[in-house]
Amino acid sequence: MMINIPNIVERLREIMADESSDQLRDELNGYHVADLADIFQELKPEERLQCFKLLDLEKAADLVEYLPPQMQVEILGDIDEEIASRIINKLPHDAAADVLGDMEEDESETYLDKLPHKFSEEVRELLTYNEDTAGGIMNPIVLTVNSDMSVQDVLNHIRVKAEEDNMELYYVYVVDKQNHLLGVVSLRKLLTSPINQKVADIMISDIVRLHVDDYSDYIVDEFMKYQYNALPVVDLYNRLKGMITWDDVHDLFEEETTEEIYQSSGISTVVVDEDEILTGNVFKAVRARTPWLFITLIGEFLAVNVAHHFNGALTALPIIAIFLPLLTGLGGNIGTQSITLMVRGLSTGQVTLSSALHHILREAFIGLCIGVFFGAMVVLVTWGWQHNVELGIIVGLAMAINMTLATIIGSFTPFALKAAKIDPAIASGPVIATTIDVVGLAIYFTLVSIFLLKVS
Amino acid sequence: MMINIPNIVERLREIMADESSDQLRDELNGYHVADLADIFQELKPEERLQCFKLLDLEKAADLVEYLPPQMQVEILGDIDEEIASRIINKLPHDAAADVLGDMEEDESETYLDKLPHKFSEEVRELLTYNEDTAGGIMNPIVLTVNSDMSVQDVLNHIRVKAEEDNMELYYVYVVDKQNHLLGVVSLRKLLTSPINQKVADIMISDIVRLHVDDYSDYIVDEFMKYQYNALPVVDLYNRLKGMITWDDVHDLFEEETTEEIYQSSGISTVVVDEDEILTGNVFKAVRARTPWLFITLIGEFLAVNVAHHFNGALTALPIIAIFLPLLTGLGGNIGTQSITLMVRGLSTGQVTLSSALHHILREAFIGLCIGVFFGAMVVLVTWGWQHNVELGIIVGLAMAINMTLATIIGSFTPFALKAAKIDPAIASGPVIATTIDVVGLAIYFTLVSIFLLKVS
Repeated sequence: MMINIPNIVERLREIMADESSDQLRDELNGYHVADLADIFQELKPEERLQCFKLLDLEKAADLVEYLPPQMQVEILGDIDEEIASRIINKLPHDAAADVLGDMEEDESETYLDKLPHKFSEEVRELLTYNEDTAGGIMNPIVLTVNSDMSVQDVLNHIRVKAEEDNMELYYVYVVDKQNHLLGVVSLRKLLTSPINQKVADIMISDIVRLHVDDYSDYIVDEFMKYQYNALPVVDLYNRLKGMITWDDVHDLFEEETTEEIYQSSGISTVVVDEDEILTGNVFKAVRARTPWLFITLIGEFLAVNVAHHFNGALTALPIIAIFLPLLTGLGGNIGTQSITLMVRGLSTGQVTLSSALHHILREAFIGLCIGVFFGAMVVLVTWGWQHNVELGIIVGLAMAINMTLATIIGSFTPFALKAAKIDPAIASGPVIATTIDVVGLAIYFTLVSIFLLKVS
Repeated sequence: MMINIPNIVERLREIMADESSDQLRDELNGYHVADLADIFQELKPEERLQCFKLLDLEKAADLVEYLPPQMQVEILGDIDEEIASRIINKLPHDAAADVLGDMEEDESETYLDKLPHKFSEEVRELLTYNEDTAGGIMNPIVLTVNSDMSVQDVLNHIRVKAEEDNMELYYVYVVDKQNHLLGVVSLRKLLTSPINQKVADIMISDIVRLHVDDYSDYIVDEFMKYQYNALPVVDLYNRLKGMITWDDVHDLFEEETTEEIYQSSGISTVVVDEDEILTGNVFKAVRARTPWLFITLIGEFLAVNVAHHFNGALTALPIIAIFLPLLTGLGGNIGTQSITLMVRGLSTGQVTLSSALHHILREAFIGLCIGVFFGAMVVLVTWGWQHNVELGIIVGLAMAINMTLATIIGSFTPFALKAAKIDPAIASGPVIATTIDVVGLAIYFTLVSIFLLKVS
């Protein structure tokens, strides 16, 4: 059932060219909104607008939730203001707050004034929270019941409330009169319990809960760990403020992963927002990419300095220079592999600080194995090609030492950072590769000086 | 509410030392199983066993689901066989199949013979599917109803069935007599519809479904795209075979992410299973890491060859050699950034083939900006330090050209692979870095030969 988006886009373009908007309307409204979102990604802005205007209001609202933030703002800004505010009114509160939060302030104020008072009040409250915290992510509309209600009461209550507020429904939260969170009941439990049983008897009171100020990385970790579909969000006094569902988290999770991957190649997501690096202002992208490269530059000047220190060796035996990229390249690569494994392992919990020594030794052994094997290859190739056994052996030896050291440096650094309570993902490849360059050059030139030039 | 695992482990060890197993039992049974799983990760095997034996049967079964595969097999193998089979019997079918599938065959056969006939038959069927496909991941126990049942009938049915089979409940699936999948009804819809309404009237028939042979990466994509809590799994003839829930997918998603990160540094997950690379046999890990390094080695021999070609230049002016690591290092790093951005963008859908040219030009411009800036720095530093303006200008120029080319090569390659229907994640950093090394050296030496040695 793989959907071929490019084919669909092509057909839609043909229908648009025919100007038969009835056919286009039927076609568009027949797709799942998740597919429509993919299709919209491929359309040009003016095509997008033309298609969006033909969607039923429900479908349009559903679709908006699936679109990336920029496109949401772009489309809602281009359509009739009246229709846009009806669409926003159909969004869940958290999605409405996200959309309005991404608009210019005067634009979002216009919409907030047009929306029903209760809705806009609730959305305004969401907008006061930092958008990277639970308060900014949660949906404030939660189904709550009292602990002395019976199962039948709750089912009746759901029938009225859930329909009326277009509410997401996974759990029913039990609160007291002041809205303090007391317990949680799953729908499954509700449906399988005797209908006259009291909520107090079937609720779970040991609740995993989030706090409005919890940051998104913590929220993702909690969801990944406890594997619930939804978690309640409370304030400092344990008053229920909203809930976060797993589909909110799945976007956060994708963002977290992207950040982790970006950091591994030294792209900073601290100074520039993650989604601006790929598509935003070019100079912001330059700013995100320069810091670690700049540190690499300084590190490489150090490497130049090391090489310069051995200028005598280079002058006496210029041929040794041609092996520099071979040594630095392979050392950097295997060292990066070690960092990648340790950083990822620390992030998923497969690797812990208490197992640091084991992993460093394991990496060193792997580096030694591959280093000796590759070193031997280098000896053979250099011998066959340059007919210079001595030089081959020195290069091969440097290769083996360099690759072993690279795995040690690459695996040690993440643990050291973690122990110092610094995010090991920042132990980014670029910096380590530079360190390995410096160390590798020093070893190679020293070996050359001692054994080939007989200088000590 | 951050839980401090090391502190808890320490306290548990003190209680174990006191040999007061009642206190230990109470303490252990009070934790959420997700926390217990984290605690178990930190314990030594014999401590783990001691603690596990004190858990209530329900809790033990819940915990097993949260433990990593190796630890599941280890613990169940160490406890009494009778108790182990009772624990396995309490697991959902998919979890039971996972545990048994990880055991030696004679061991799993022993358990399968001990288990109730119906349960073991169903688990045996699951074991026939490839564990990376929907068939191997799904839970076969699904709540099904007929389309002519009323809402009240369904609610009564749930009350009996869900309790009896310890069933996960998100949606109710509507099937015909031959078990063909006809539609789906959410619990929310059930609870908010009039109780005498027919299922046929409230069910959704345009169902996103998985096929038993769909692979895990496709399953993850479908869940991420459609954001459902559960998806039904059907066979070739649309007969309902089971369902997959989002907590199954969240493990798959973490695995996919790990594979993507591993591939980016040239660690192959094709020849060796992903979870064996970090903790399995060392020589398997060597095998996973060698292939791309080997290709790098060959590429770097090419670089050596290029450098050797300019041996004359090196002999005439050995000082030029000391800048090699600077040039290759920075070219490699900025090129790796470009690959990372494109590969990740293609994977999340933020970047598409149709926007390839835009992104390559954008990357080239970013490379040019950073390259010119860094090139200027190199000119200044070399001038201040070597008092050699000419050499500084050549190195700086090579730097600017090299960094620009690196971004072009780094962004072009993933698109080319994607267009050739090859997974762009395989465009792994190591190989590109080598390519950039070769090109960079050629440019640098050519510039040196033309402008410094006046040889053309």
